[in-house]
Amino acid sequence: MSATNKHKILNDPIYGFITIPSPLIFDLLEHSYFQRLRRISQLGLTYLVYPGAYHTRFHHALGAMHLAMQAIYSLRQKEVAISEEEQEAVAAAILLHDIGHGPFSHALENEMVPGISHETLSEYFMAHLNEEFQGRLSLALQIFRDEYPRRFLHQLISSQLDVDRLDYLRRDCFYTGVSEGQVNAERLITMLHVAQDQIVVDAKGIYSVEKFLVARRLMYWQVYLHKTVLSAEYLLLQILRRAREVYQPTMAMPSALRPFISGQLPPERQELIEHYARLDDADFMAGIKEWEQHEDALLSNLCQRLLHRRLLGVQRLASRPSKARLEELVQQTALHLGLSSEEARYLVFVQAVSNNAYDPRKDRIHLLYRDGKLIDIAEAADQLNISALSKPVTKFFLFAPKAVLPQRRT
Amino acid sequence: MSATNKHKILNDPIYGFITIPSPLIFDLLEHSYFQRLRRISQLGLTYLVYPGAYHTRFHHALGAMHLAMQAIYSLRQKEVAISEEEQEAVAAAILLHDIGHGPFSHALENEMVPGISHETLSEYFMAHLNEEFQGRLSLALQIFRDEYPRRFLHQLISSQLDVDRLDYLRRDCFYTGVSEGQVNAERLITMLHVAQDQIVVDAKGIYSVEKFLVARRLMYWQVYLHKTVLSAEYLLLQILRRAREVYQPTMAMPSALRPFISGQLPPERQELIEHYARLDDADFMAGIKEWEQHEDALLSNLCQRLLHRRLLGVQRLASRPSKARLEELVQQTALHLGLSSEEARYLVFVQAVSNNAYDPRKDRIHLLYRDGKLIDIAEAADQLNISALSKPVTKFFLFAPKAVLPQRRT
Amino acid sequence: MSATNKHKILNDPIYGFITIPSPLIFDLLEHSYFQRLRRISQLGLTYLVYPGAYHTRFHHALGAMHLAMQAIYSLRQKEVAISEEEQEAVAAAILLHDIGHGPFSHALENEMVPGISHETLSEYFMAHLNEEFQGRLSLALQIFRDEYPRRFLHQLISSQLDVDRLDYLRRDCFYTGVSEGQVNAERLITMLHVAQDQIVVDAKGIYSVEKFLVARRLMYWQVYLHKTVLSAEYLLLQILRRAREVYQPTMAMPSALRPFISGQLPPERQELIEHYARLDDADFMAGIKEWEQHEDALLSNLCQRLLHRRLLGVQRLASRPSKARLEELVQQTALHLGLSSEEARYLVFVQAVSNNAYDPRKDRIHLLYRDGKLIDIAEAADQLNISALSKPVTKFFLFAPKAVLPQRRT
Amino acid sequence: MSATNKHKILNDPIYGFITIPSPLIFDLLEHSYFQRLRRISQLGLTYLVYPGAYHTRFHHALGAMHLAMQAIYSLRQKEVAISEEEQEAVAAAILLHDIGHGPFSHALENEMVPGISHETLSEYFMAHLNEEFQGRLSLALQIFRDEYPRRFLHQLISSQLDVDRLDYLRRDCFYTGVSEGQVNAERLITMLHVAQDQIVVDAKGIYSVEKFLVARRLMYWQVYLHKTVLSAEYLLLQILRRAREVYQPTMAMPSALRPFISGQLPPERQELIEHYARLDDADFMAGIKEWEQHEDALLSNLCQRLLHRRLLGVQRLASRPSKARLEELVQQTALHLGLSSEEARYLVFVQAVSNNAYDPRKDRIHLLYRDGKLIDIAEAADQLNISALSKPVTKFFLFAPKAVLPQRRT
Repeated sequence: MSATNKHKILNDPIYGFITIPSPLIFDLLEHSYFQRLRRISQLGLTYLVYPGAYHTRFHHALGAMHLAMQAIYSLRQKEVAISEEEQEAVAAAILLHDIGHGPFSHALENEMVPGISHETLSEYFMAHLNEEFQGRLSLALQIFRDEYPRRFLHQLISSQLDVDRLDYLRRDCFYTGVSEGQVNAERLITMLHVAQDQIVVDAKGIYSVEKFLVARRLMYWQVYLHKTVLSAEYLLLQILRRAREVYQPTMAMPSALRPFISGQLPPERQELIEHYARLDDADFMAGIKEWEQHEDALLSNLCQRLLHRRLLGVQRLASRPSKARLEELVQQTALHLGLSSEEARYLVFVQAVSNNAYDPRKDRIHLLYRDGKLIDIAEAADQLNISALSKPVTKFFLFAPKAVLPQRRT
Repeated sequence: MSATNKHKILNDPIYGFITIPSPLIFDLLEHSYFQRLRRISQLGLTYLVYPGAYHTRFHHALGAMHLAMQAIYSLRQKEVAISEEEQEAVAAAILLHDIGHGPFSHALENEMVPGISHETLSEYFMAHLNEEFQGRLSLALQIFRDEYPRRFLHQLISSQLDVDRLDYLRRDCFYTGVSEGQVNAERLITMLHVAQDQIVVDAKGIYSVEKFLVARRLMYWQVYLHKTVLSAEYLLLQILRRAREVYQPTMAMPSALRPFISGQLPPERQELIEHYARLDDADFMAGIKEWEQHEDALLSNLCQRLLHRRLLGVQRLASRPSKARLEELVQQTALHLGLSSEEARYLVFVQAVSNNAYDPRKDRIHLLYRDGKLIDIAEAADQLNISALSKPVTKFFLFAPKAVLPQRRT
Repeated sequence: MSATNKHKILNDPIYGFITIPSPLIFDLLEHSYFQRLRRISQLGLTYLVYPGAYHTRFHHALGAMHLAMQAIYSLRQKEVAISEEEQEAVAAAILLHDIGHGPFSHALENEMVPGISHETLSEYFMAHLNEEFQGRLSLALQIFRDEYPRRFLHQLISSQLDVDRLDYLRRDCFYTGVSEGQVNAERLITMLHVAQDQIVVDAKGIYSVEKFLVARRLMYWQVYLHKTVLSAEYLLLQILRRAREVYQPTMAMPSALRPFISGQLPPERQELIEHYARLDDADFMAGIKEWEQHEDALLSNLCQRLLHRRLLGVQRLASRPSKARLEELVQQTALHLGLSSEEARYLVFVQAVSNNAYDPRKDRIHLLYRDGKLIDIAEAADQLNISALSKPVTKFFLFAPKAVLPQRRT
Repeated sequence: MSATNKHKILNDPIYGFITIPSPLIFDLLEHSYFQRLRRISQLGLTYLVYPGAYHTRFHHALGAMHLAMQAIYSLRQKEVAISEEEQEAVAAAILLHDIGHGPFSHALENEMVPGISHETLSEYFMAHLNEEFQGRLSLALQIFRDEYPRRFLHQLISSQLDVDRLDYLRRDCFYTGVSEGQVNAERLITMLHVAQDQIVVDAKGIYSVEKFLVARRLMYWQVYLHKTVLSAEYLLLQILRRAREVYQPTMAMPSALRPFISGQLPPERQELIEHYARLDDADFMAGIKEWEQHEDALLSNLCQRLLHRRLLGVQRLASRPSKARLEELVQQTALHLGLSSEEARYLVFVQAVSNNAYDPRKDRIHLLYRDGKLIDIAEAADQLNISALSKPVTKFFLFAPKAVLPQRRT
């Protein structure tokens, strides 16, 4: 992309081409903060299970922006007035919605900067960029924060049927090869409409929405919460925790990573952002490679497991296991690996994961009928199963070294 | 395909290539009875709504056979013993399972030969071919009729998760472009297993089965029972009925069609088959084109509607409309078109259509767990929505000329 | 499609959705003349070789219109001014460009109405529709006939890189499953530009054009001129010729077909069009089914071959075979089938077929360089092979019954 | 993948599923040496141009193995005898054929370990693994080195039409979205045969081979030798060179990278391999991130360019530019960036790149005719353009900072 050619077209294996809609968007794309997303994988360590899943936040952000532009084009066809300024603001807001993600995306998301979520970090970045771009992102920020009066624009980028979800389902399905998750994002977009200042769906799109919700549910259980993916990602988290625990200034690691391990992060927002903007997957991975040789046997063990794919075993359970059962596994692990009980707990733990495909307590997905009535998808005739999908499903996973955890399938 | 090259490979836009597994199967393919299926559309008049849906029974039969061969290959990998004879018999049985279909497949299926279903006709054809092939189809017939002791072979070609359904969903979705219906047939097949002489699914395939059932449900409401498709196909049925009613020996129509209109079908099974084997979509369409000019105003009106796509209007209703409402529409139609009330009833009628995605009263789909247990998919943990999908959904459709039926959407 | 909803969207398995751009276009679509194209197969009898290839002229015309609308959208982005009237005229012109096709498209194209090509018939139809639509198609006709001053609009619908070719290659490849022919029509369209009142291609599209030309060449030899497809289609032609030769008023056939066999076509253009508009694949197929029983042994033999896929054998030859060789085959055939030599010549014949992927003697495909220069694709640097592709390739095919023609492969 | 489940199936977005053919292959896959390939990108820095292209050597090796297994299955169907041992050896050989690749694959391939190519390194790895696996890879090594008497097995994994090329074209095309490069790998494989101990192609596959060669040519010019990709990859090379030049023991970098920068590589083969096996993309990227802050202005400038995508400008030239022209650019660059002339030469340079789609001086691709004759594809009738494709095409690229190199397109 050259500075003289600001209506650039990018190749995308999913949508074919993505057009950059304006010079401002082009300049955001070229910014170091955004280029960093090329080095942040979209799905953390999912590639250890689905070897095609190396795509990045950069690509997802572009894809979601593309869908947002398509949605605006389609809404305008239906005579929903959207100004050029609003369009550019939506493009900027969706492009930057994930800019606060750190190494391996969700795998570490609330741990990298303790106490600050990636959404908050995204806002910091946007606020800072807004200054750098002399206020040209103000409208984007308003929309992002849902402070803009035309609230449907916020819903387009953040709701239960937004371009973010449409792109990530489509993209994650494409790269993992899990065809169960396929949604026809372009088709759904042509069915969107605006009523009562909300994004709604034409009533004839009822089955497309059902398909979308079921696809999302299946992607959760087959990919995002796949037991081996969880096993890899909790390992990453344990590495982060242990590295912080045994931290010494002499400990080898990339400079960009150090403040996030030592805990010496600057309190000032702008400085924090600058540190954060230097950090990506490569630093964390390079750190793990250093620590594979670390003298702390536990840290070294955790790093070796990750690098050479000797992941913890996993059992799916109907309910939370007893304390006694857990303690027994901890003792076996300690014995087996020559660790203290305290240390062994890094390798033996339980996680409850929960998902519901449609959450009526959040915003709702409404169908628009010909007479102008709006009906919640879960209440529309014939949608018994969507109302079934609204109930959260919780599963328990027990993790421990395979040597102590007999393997079972499913 | 030449007689000297009996391991022929055919191009298929869906699976890439389909290999003919044996010379017997090749000879069945080449038989006139089977070649006739090239002129029987798979989805009746669905092409009036989905302009890509011209695929034929010939193509579906080949595709289902291909999937059956893949399933056998995969089962053998899992050490399910299946002999060469059984494999060929399965290939023949699935290839011929729809050979009794007549013009426009389901659209006219129980009307073409009054009192004899297409399944029964398929059996007649198979029995006759078995004689012609000197008993080499006996095993195929046994499997088809579920009289063979190893019942899983029958289930493979006829059950709620059989290669017939897998192929037609995949194929109909491909040709209509209704991506909601996409199933990954090849993936599901690798998950099949045999336990207790039944076709079962590996427990880890739980979400793939869910996806399959939801896809099937969506294809029913978006394609097979789409209101405009129904409108076209009921028109076809009314044409058949009216043509029979006004039949005269001088009435123009193709020779192959005549006995099915005049009612002068031979009582003897073999002769009936021979007549039937000459009949295809082209005859019926050519008949309709003759009758467009017929002196009976009603028949002519019906034919014109079909040929030039002036279909009846449709309203979807929550419940059956009152007799009075219907009668009023009949009178308006009679007045509007200069027909008697009797005649107008050909253009004004109600149909109830019903579907459930999974029918536990028929055979069940069982998941196979690692400990050998079989669990009905609707009862497996976390499958609330499949149990919701087991309840039948019924919809009422009211058909009448658009001039008397105000248009509403959905 | 209802008359009240004239911005209809249609499903297309290839492009996803096709939007009808204006009420006039909607009305053209609904016209009986255009609806007839639903019963004209795009690729004649190609389905006897590629069982998925049942798509129709209706579908191709829609697809080509869709691509034309995409091209106009893209050209406008590049600041090529195109008025609303021009856009609608292009849509109408491309939609109707093939409306003169008769049964089985190219297979019979210059024989159905002796002496009048399908292009001329298309023009007759368009002229007649223009009257019916009170002159609203005048601009479309001008563009179609290349009489409109802005000639690039004609090129868009008729040249060596037009939306007609882009759609048919993409579509025929999709339905046959011959992946060698795949072109990325949407991508090529984004690369089109206008210079010196011509459609040209951005220089960076050089390899996309190369790919398009190679794909077209491969589709010719693997599909359009596939020897078995030719064998089926020449059979169709022989049936037409023989039926005309033995015609008697008592001969059974659909009414719509009769004047085209008897030769009693009205000389007046408007009447001719009306006859022609009633004719489609179903009539011809129904005729063949009648003639299977015809007393003329030759006609009956030809029809049986087609219906039951007992096609003539084919040999590809490096040069035209000698008269003696041909005569010998004629005699053997006559003997074998109990025909006169005269009759046997219907079953033994030679055809030369010829194709070049790029024909620089017709219009040329120009690349547009940044400095504004236009260069013929065959002369652009690095395109030795395109210049090789400009030379016509001719092949000879010898057809005869398999009983007298020993089978060879390739 | 668990140790107890050695017939594992992996998801692949391209082929659907990849089955691990034997426990030995499973153990190779699990080996640290092979797992390292998960961190080696297949296409170096191509993702800076095609944002989807993050796939890895791990994935390509699996895909090529899958195709090899398919080829063996297909050849056995054609009665080519291949033993179980040979099959496993082919699987191992193709799986390991790229194991010697280092960070960013081809971008740095002959520079990482000066004087030793990645092919030689692959052999070292294989020899070492053979010891570790007690000689069970001996046959694989023989085939890899083309020392096994049945030479077609070597050709299957290494020739101008091998499973390596088939997989990488298919895969690189999939991930970049450059549809011009699409080849139907599975189809080509069904057309392979063995004659005179060579891999040959059935004569009817002539157009598929043509398509394959053209696709490969287009992928070279649109992806592998895309000017911006080259610009990024030469930058990487310059970084490596400069880092070595300014190396000091205090220089920050990951431990795994250090010996490759300091030049202190162990001379002993086994030790070398162990160092090399620790190195991957993450180390190199983490090094670049350290050096962004390095005191050497040139090194820092090079690293910043890469990290924030401020790549060098590129001009494509018809011939090598004059020394004077180059010198002028060097001086301008030195002045502009405050560098010495010596240093500026890292930013201003010319590269000639060359490619021919088919190289008849290497091994040849032969077509097998029905009479048993073998004909070189370039000499087969009708393949003028393949013979055109045999001529090498050379292009010159001039690289320099955009500030001194005026931008032109194409």
